[in-house]
Amino acid sequence: MISIIPVPGLPEIEPDHDLAALFVETLGEDFLRDGDVLVVTQKVVSKAEGRTADAETKKEVVASESRRMLRQVGTMVISETHHGFVCANAGVDESNISVGQIALLPVDPDASARRIRSRLEHLTGCDVKVIISDTFGRAWRLGQTDIAIGVAGMQPFTDYVGTQDTQGREMRATRICTADELAGAAEMVMGKADGVCAAVVRGAPVTSGRGAAVQIVRPPGDDLFR
Amino acid sequence: MISIIPVPGLPEIEPDHDLAALFVETLGEDFLRDGDVLVVTQKVVSKAEGRTADAETKKEVVASESRRMLRQVGTMVISETHHGFVCANAGVDESNISVGQIALLPVDPDASARRIRSRLEHLTGCDVKVIISDTFGRAWRLGQTDIAIGVAGMQPFTDYVGTQDTQGREMRATRICTADELAGAAEMVMGKADGVCAAVVRGAPVTSGRGAAVQIVRPPGDDLFR
Repeated sequence: MISIIPVPGLPEIEPDHDLAALFVETLGEDFLRDGDVLVVTQKVVSKAEGRTADAETKKEVVASESRRMLRQVGTMVISETHHGFVCANAGVDESNISVGQIALLPVDPDASARRIRSRLEHLTGCDVKVIISDTFGRAWRLGQTDIAIGVAGMQPFTDYVGTQDTQGREMRATRICTADELAGAAEMVMGKADGVCAAVVRGAPVTSGRGAAVQIVRPPGDDLFR
Repeated sequence: MISIIPVPGLPEIEPDHDLAALFVETLGEDFLRDGDVLVVTQKVVSKAEGRTADAETKKEVVASESRRMLRQVGTMVISETHHGFVCANAGVDESNISVGQIALLPVDPDASARRIRSRLEHLTGCDVKVIISDTFGRAWRLGQTDIAIGVAGMQPFTDYVGTQDTQGREMRATRICTADELAGAAEMVMGKADGVCAAVVRGAPVTSGRGAAVQIVRPPGDDLFR
């Protein structure tokens, strides 16, 4: 069984706030366990890292956060960020941040995840995996889901290539992006307006390791739809 | 808190098996509760509906299950199914089915979900939402995730359009595809080889209603990447 537990009640996050310490304080020192996955939304990580800007500069910021523009519809662009993520407005948006401000994606969300993980380990002694999540749209399907833009302490994929199915046949093509499924699962306990910005997923089948969310980016040359 | 509970130990599914009765028998008559979401993998639904074919006819079956071919790489095609889903080989595959056979997607997975839901209600008296899930690849990101191809008893989306964020600003663009997040979350308790083909998600924020997975299909005319 998997449990998804919201982390409630963080204060408004300011630059240089120690997110890991705030999570431990809110959850209680003995709450986290080895193998737990802490999913943290991008917005609070960006705020803690000072990755905000004046909303009036949004157009320029979106351009400078992009390495390639893919599509444009009205004022919304779909671009490829410097990390390789394909998303609306290079991940720059104005929700859940002070009026007049915009939030940018962390410069290196995998490094952000590793820092939070390392600090959690220092504070609790536990091997907690960390995912930084953001809400992205998709080609072909309406609605958004949360996906992983930063990963630490685990492999982003659960790989079935080379394993056998129930009939003993080799599975050739199945490699599940567990990091994205964890991010989406955690989203369900985070109402967009009630200030829950993190969740603990307990009991999930994660593979420990030095994985990173950049591994999830499909190389543009292999992408049939870019 | 959300709990994701695997439904273990179904027998090998044959045409006309009563899936809902098998789930209730396995879980125990008093297990399901109002508001639970039962996520069932496409493969067992297809088997129960006799949607299988001889593996030697795969190429012809993939063609007849497609309404439009989008891309081809070697023997793998990305096509649009008659339902509108964009996926590899029109959802036709040979894993977890008798050797020499292939499984096709249900003709109308939303109708399949409604039938299972209706039968569950008859057997238990509970308002259980049903999602039929399948494992799909994505543009831009490596690895697959489970998504919803059939939905019954709930809206596929949780709509934040018109609601306010923590700063009191109107959220303009956020409509979460909760059905896909539920399918992905449930996947995490279903190892691909150990025969778990369904899971109960308890405590998720679902909106009751007569929704359907076809609502998730982005109309090709609105799709910037088709």
